[in-house]
Amino acid sequence: MSRTNPAVDAVSGEPQRRFVYDFDHDHGVEPMTLKALLGGKGANLAEMTSVLGLPVPHGFTISTSGCRAYLRHGWPVALDLEIDDAIARLEARMGRRLGDDVDPLLVSVRSGAQFSMPGMMDTVLNLGLNDASVKAIVERTGDARFAYDSYARFIAMYGRIVLDIDATLFDEHLRRAMDAAGVVTESGLSAEANAELALRYRAVVEEQSGRPFPQEPRVQMREAIEAIFSSWNGARARAFRDREGIDHDLGTAANVQAMVFGNRDASSGTGVAFTRNPSNGEPVAFGDFMVNAQGEDVVAGTSITRPLSDLDYLFPDVANQLRQVFARLEAHFGDMCDIEFTVEQGRLWMLQTRPGMRTGAAALRMAVDMVNDPAIHLTRAEAISRITGDHLDQVLHPTFSSSSPLTVLARGLAASPGAAVGRAYFDAESAVTASKRGERVILVRAETSPDDVAGMLAAQGVVTARGGLVSHAAVVARGWGKPAVVGVSNLLVEVNSARVGDVVIHEGDWLSLDGTAGIVVLGEVELASSAAPAQLEVILRWADEIRAGHLGVRANADTAADAAAARDRGAEGIGLCRTEHMFLGPERLPVVRAMILADNDEEYRDALERLLEVQRADFVAILEVMDALPVTVRLLDPPLHEFLPDLEALLIKEAKEGLNDDETRLLAAARYWHEQNPMLGVRGVRLGVLKPGLYAMQVRALLEAAQLRLEAGGDPRVEIMIPLTISAPELALARSWVIEAGEYVASKYLAPLQFSIGTMIETPRAALLANEIATHADFFSFGTNDLTQMTFGFSRDDVEGKLMAPYLAQGLLEHNPFDVLDDQGVAELVRLGISRGRSTNPRLKVGICGEHGGDPASIAILYGCGVDYVSCSPYRIPVARLAAAQAVLAGKAEHSR
Amino acid sequence: MSRTNPAVDAVSGEPQRRFVYDFDHDHGVEPMTLKALLGGKGANLAEMTSVLGLPVPHGFTISTSGCRAYLRHGWPVALDLEIDDAIARLEARMGRRLGDDVDPLLVSVRSGAQFSMPGMMDTVLNLGLNDASVKAIVERTGDARFAYDSYARFIAMYGRIVLDIDATLFDEHLRRAMDAAGVVTESGLSAEANAELALRYRAVVEEQSGRPFPQEPRVQMREAIEAIFSSWNGARARAFRDREGIDHDLGTAANVQAMVFGNRDASSGTGVAFTRNPSNGEPVAFGDFMVNAQGEDVVAGTSITRPLSDLDYLFPDVANQLRQVFARLEAHFGDMCDIEFTVEQGRLWMLQTRPGMRTGAAALRMAVDMVNDPAIHLTRAEAISRITGDHLDQVLHPTFSSSSPLTVLARGLAASPGAAVGRAYFDAESAVTASKRGERVILVRAETSPDDVAGMLAAQGVVTARGGLVSHAAVVARGWGKPAVVGVSNLLVEVNSARVGDVVIHEGDWLSLDGTAGIVVLGEVELASSAAPAQLEVILRWADEIRAGHLGVRANADTAADAAAARDRGAEGIGLCRTEHMFLGPERLPVVRAMILADNDEEYRDALERLLEVQRADFVAILEVMDALPVTVRLLDPPLHEFLPDLEALLIKEAKEGLNDDETRLLAAARYWHEQNPMLGVRGVRLGVLKPGLYAMQVRALLEAAQLRLEAGGDPRVEIMIPLTISAPELALARSWVIEAGEYVASKYLAPLQFSIGTMIETPRAALLANEIATHADFFSFGTNDLTQMTFGFSRDDVEGKLMAPYLAQGLLEHNPFDVLDDQGVAELVRLGISRGRSTNPRLKVGICGEHGGDPASIAILYGCGVDYVSCSPYRIPVARLAAAQAVLAGKAEHSR
Repeated sequence: MSRTNPAVDAVSGEPQRRFVYDFDHDHGVEPMTLKALLGGKGANLAEMTSVLGLPVPHGFTISTSGCRAYLRHGWPVALDLEIDDAIARLEARMGRRLGDDVDPLLVSVRSGAQFSMPGMMDTVLNLGLNDASVKAIVERTGDARFAYDSYARFIAMYGRIVLDIDATLFDEHLRRAMDAAGVVTESGLSAEANAELALRYRAVVEEQSGRPFPQEPRVQMREAIEAIFSSWNGARARAFRDREGIDHDLGTAANVQAMVFGNRDASSGTGVAFTRNPSNGEPVAFGDFMVNAQGEDVVAGTSITRPLSDLDYLFPDVANQLRQVFARLEAHFGDMCDIEFTVEQGRLWMLQTRPGMRTGAAALRMAVDMVNDPAIHLTRAEAISRITGDHLDQVLHPTFSSSSPLTVLARGLAASPGAAVGRAYFDAESAVTASKRGERVILVRAETSPDDVAGMLAAQGVVTARGGLVSHAAVVARGWGKPAVVGVSNLLVEVNSARVGDVVIHEGDWLSLDGTAGIVVLGEVELASSAAPAQLEVILRWADEIRAGHLGVRANADTAADAAAARDRGAEGIGLCRTEHMFLGPERLPVVRAMILADNDEEYRDALERLLEVQRADFVAILEVMDALPVTVRLLDPPLHEFLPDLEALLIKEAKEGLNDDETRLLAAARYWHEQNPMLGVRGVRLGVLKPGLYAMQVRALLEAAQLRLEAGGDPRVEIMIPLTISAPELALARSWVIEAGEYVASKYLAPLQFSIGTMIETPRAALLANEIATHADFFSFGTNDLTQMTFGFSRDDVEGKLMAPYLAQGLLEHNPFDVLDDQGVAELVRLGISRGRSTNPRLKVGICGEHGGDPASIAILYGCGVDYVSCSPYRIPVARLAAAQAVLAGKAEHSR
Repeated sequence: MSRTNPAVDAVSGEPQRRFVYDFDHDHGVEPMTLKALLGGKGANLAEMTSVLGLPVPHGFTISTSGCRAYLRHGWPVALDLEIDDAIARLEARMGRRLGDDVDPLLVSVRSGAQFSMPGMMDTVLNLGLNDASVKAIVERTGDARFAYDSYARFIAMYGRIVLDIDATLFDEHLRRAMDAAGVVTESGLSAEANAELALRYRAVVEEQSGRPFPQEPRVQMREAIEAIFSSWNGARARAFRDREGIDHDLGTAANVQAMVFGNRDASSGTGVAFTRNPSNGEPVAFGDFMVNAQGEDVVAGTSITRPLSDLDYLFPDVANQLRQVFARLEAHFGDMCDIEFTVEQGRLWMLQTRPGMRTGAAALRMAVDMVNDPAIHLTRAEAISRITGDHLDQVLHPTFSSSSPLTVLARGLAASPGAAVGRAYFDAESAVTASKRGERVILVRAETSPDDVAGMLAAQGVVTARGGLVSHAAVVARGWGKPAVVGVSNLLVEVNSARVGDVVIHEGDWLSLDGTAGIVVLGEVELASSAAPAQLEVILRWADEIRAGHLGVRANADTAADAAAARDRGAEGIGLCRTEHMFLGPERLPVVRAMILADNDEEYRDALERLLEVQRADFVAILEVMDALPVTVRLLDPPLHEFLPDLEALLIKEAKEGLNDDETRLLAAARYWHEQNPMLGVRGVRLGVLKPGLYAMQVRALLEAAQLRLEAGGDPRVEIMIPLTISAPELALARSWVIEAGEYVASKYLAPLQFSIGTMIETPRAALLANEIATHADFFSFGTNDLTQMTFGFSRDDVEGKLMAPYLAQGLLEHNPFDVLDDQGVAELVRLGISRGRSTNPRLKVGICGEHGGDPASIAILYGCGVDYVSCSPYRIPVARLAAAQAVLAGKAEHSR
């Protein structure tokens, strides 16, 4: 379809060589598609004016091409002429003239780049006021206080924003004027006091700028526009663009719009509204309105706020008109809109519209409603794309009630989402006891260890002073979906109390925490309920339809209980079953230690045999829960010293009171297996090499469990995963152990059992050598936690607490790479690993099982890398299902471009 | 030049479709260039016969193409016909016939692949003997013992090698025969006993193979050749080829050669010789000769060995002929040759020639002599390529005298090359005291720390039980060129003694160690002197000429003394000056600790100011020694806990006796800075971010030192290096500190000072993001130690001792990647880093400063990666200069291909 597009050159498709566009200019295409030229705000105003025909105060946009021309070669002569023309049209339409001494036109000047951006100059209101026009406003409004207040504010705003004068210089005069008048709010100042203030502000401007305050509105306007253009290159804006990867050459637009006055009289007013209820999603408009007021009066508190529904009897015509406008906007934008409007002497003016913020529950309800609404006709894909991970977190976990005022006591790492309230206890035993007598409990520890798990289970939430996002506390809490804040570095945990600065928390004190935000509050904060709305399941089902065949979602689950929680939430299998947790049970640890301490082959084999028995039972339970779905079992990974008592504690005990024989043996073993850098030490398949038979035992336990499931009529689907591979011969060797153990088990049972063998890719070398390694692997699973640690040289335990905050604050890193997968470094290794792996093994299946598997931004990156599935904590499954669908949709959009 | 080449098809250049080539066949090209067809041994025999016209017993080669045809399709019919023809020609020439019962021809059959290869079938001698021909040999030689001994040996050899019969079955009969005869050597057996033995051997063969021992020489020959061909696919040979990357399709050749008998009579004999002295390189032939003996009699000890010079009066004609042969061989091969020859009844037969092994001193002398010898006319490039790093180690460091028999007490890691002898002391103080009273000392420690350096300095060499190749002991010893063996895992160091198994080493016991081989010997081993021959400097000068403009060699040196040692040895600058060693002096450590413990800004700045003073003085001294050469100074790198007392020791002391106030403060700091994985912790530029002003202080100290040098008329060339970079903004920030400090210093001095700013690339991420990072860097220096640790996930401290040995033994890794740069993983990151870095900064200078900078194999890989210079320990400089030249030569050869 060919159509004239006056804003765009018909041949080249490039913007025409003009700089100024009225809001109602015939743009030829939908103005919202011209954001690059008109900026976001300009496009929005033009869309409302020229496409929707809504009542918007007239005005015009100086395009980003004007800004670019200005920044390159200085103020273009043609721009002055175009602005003159645009002003003339505006004056004619409004029947008022800029700077007129009878009925002056006032305008706002606002910046509006393609992307919203901190550090840019924002808004100058009431431009056009000067010593003459302010008197005309007094005449026409009969409100001298309002007129001089507006003038004073304009001068200060102009001085501050356009002329870059220190705001405190104006504030000082304001404070003195208020002291002199004996009032505590600006609105308490009289007309005379405001007039006096305007004079003083003018003197400040003249003193600081070395020239008179510009009385000529055209000069005011040009200077304001120049200031907007120049602010594009301000340090903060540049830094922001650097960080966000936004092109420095885009430039910003500027918008000039006639002022309308909601504070003109009792038939005027101003309001903000949502086209639906942003709290619960009900399809009923929702908002506030103030009679005889301007937007900024909300802050000043000079008028009374009324609910939007009051409009029905206050201004019934406006109310009717607004209802039509709302329907129009929703049908046009296909979304709930957040509106600003003004009524001037009974006439409605729309000032702004944009997609409205909403709660998680509202987002879900609206998304489903709008798909079913024939007037809006949202597609399922669009509905999916409107829901964020934060929305789901809100409906899946309790949150602090938004009505509760919060005083944050301390901040830490947001380790496990959701809010919790309870009484503080400082050891597991007290926590359990208190919980048994019916108290809600928050467990507060310096850090947690396996000894604390009973207390964690009894608690509503967990707070620790030390540890990062993969500390014991964080991992366990996430696994149980229990809110947790960890690494609260200024929290000092003592015996039966804790301290943050001067504040002491005693046992039994009420404490609240928000594990989504990472904050701890002293006292009992009210929680918002978290019953997930019915629409959640609908959205997730749609999400599953979209991602089916593209991106799977599995869970990291180590026990049958974890597996059940994961399957309930829609997991399509287990992507990571860590067998080490099976070694840590109180009745098992002694056997594991016996295996480590074994003096001879017989002791060693005996310990392995006992471990086999218990592991087999564990596997049977997990395979039963996950029947007919894949279960990826990782063979033992952690360094052996994790199964031994703490070396430091043993040494201190030895120094203090001596050790018995068993302890002496344990000390020797702890010393032998102690490592300088356990992250880079003897673990993963390296253990398999050093401890012959260990992996074979685990494989036997697993395959025998699968055989028992087969005999019971089940459908076990086993995938065996070798951790920490660095070379092809290493994986070939480990594969041979698995196959040998498999043949041994097969010889004992009748039914043939299929299983696959793969490896974790978690060292940079494994990613680089993936082509060789893939020849021995049926699947890869990227361990992005460890891969991130090795790629950055970041030990989470050591750098997250001390380093991450200053690094993020100073822009040395864009994100915490443990939260969001590093797209440049780590993801490049993932991409390399996948393409090299598939180059030699085209049928290679690829998953990831680091913490990134539950992070929406990371899921998008990983899907782009080519993974077949992500695996995450059971409680992140809904978020991952949604994010996976969004990644698939984004991929299709990318592809069709 | 067009020339007919009967072995190679004139059109296709492929070998002709024939399988058998007489040694004197007109090959058309030099046979040595046909190794792929004839195998190494066949080519060598053909070269001596047909090119050099030397007296070689006649024979023929069955080519590798014959082997390939056999392995693919079975024994080719054409091959039988060709062999028949070749045998006929051989019989005609020798005037003897195979299996003849009057004057039988005997032959040897030997394998000979293109590359020599363990696991291949080797040699069958005396083939052609059978029940008839053995009698003819008795007749002709008159020596029945010899004839039956030969026959028995042939049967056993044939059974063992061709028919794969267990050797012990033959040995058992031999043992019984010797017991029966009451003799202790085989040569003591009578003719009858040997004849009996031959019968028994034949019975073994018949029993084991289930058929008669083949009497027909043509059958013997075919079976021997088939055995050779089949052994190509033996498990050991395959594994070897896998490891070495040799194509499995090459196949091997087989050589059939007429036997000659040095044990025929008193005018016969056999000898081995070198054309020059392999010990010192003197241009005088050197060897051993035995009258009336065969090669294998050397082992049996039945004849007396005489020096080669005895030939002059024993067999003056042979001696003259040999002299001519030697000259001919040297002129032809351009190298010292290692010869086997036999004299049969006064006639000389050459059996083999190959390049001879030589000592380091001999290698150097020969290389220089041969360049100056008009008959040989070696090029300098060829001379350079003949010297190995081991040759240089031999002449640069003392070695165990080769005449000393050694009983190795324990093995460890070869941490610093050279041999040392002294009395064992187990603490630094005793070592210093003993050294002062004139004793030679070996310091034996569990591991060393900065407290041990005085003892290390006093010692001849160092042995430690723990630690890897970058442990404190290893790094310090290498830095001083002092022999060291570290990580001797079965060494248990106690107070004033040590223990290896049941052997106890007491204080004052003599101990010897070889740090090149990594062995420890109880007792006083004689050392070979290490005065470097005069030719060393000549060779190194030639090496420098070759690598000039291609690959520089710098030193890792932290002190003026190190720098002087490095410059003496030809370093062209300092590639890595670690500033942390400057912090560890006994008078400085308290100031460093004051800086770490500082409670307020003033204390902190005061400590920095005091450090500045001492660092500046250090830098002045280093810049003076390295005047006019570049000095790359790395800003502080290690984690701060390295400057604090050991946490474990403090905790034990606290438990035992309590701590004073200072110790309590130190304990708190040690706890705070303690890290789970220091390798991945807060160090490098991360410290710079956390400790404001620290790097600026170091830069000021350095640039002020440079200014002082300028004022003194010096030419300081400063390069400032930021460690452990992970992102471009991080390096940009660090660069800004350097520039700011530079401007501050510049403002205080008149002379302008140029310096460059670069970074270490030691995290995988830095290599991957090198394009961004290079925009803020004048140079990169790859820290291949840390890059290896992070790429493999290998903490040297933890995996070298426990893991490396089993990994190498099982072929899971080809090399210890800390010895030889990992060409697949780590080197790929180096290649990526360099190409990406230069893509945005084409003038980027690139060096490497890990331990690999002193390893010849790694230097070759790194030159291929595109580095501009390598930097290594001062004592490795000569090796690096040579290896760099060899890398450049190899690169040119590669390029011209």
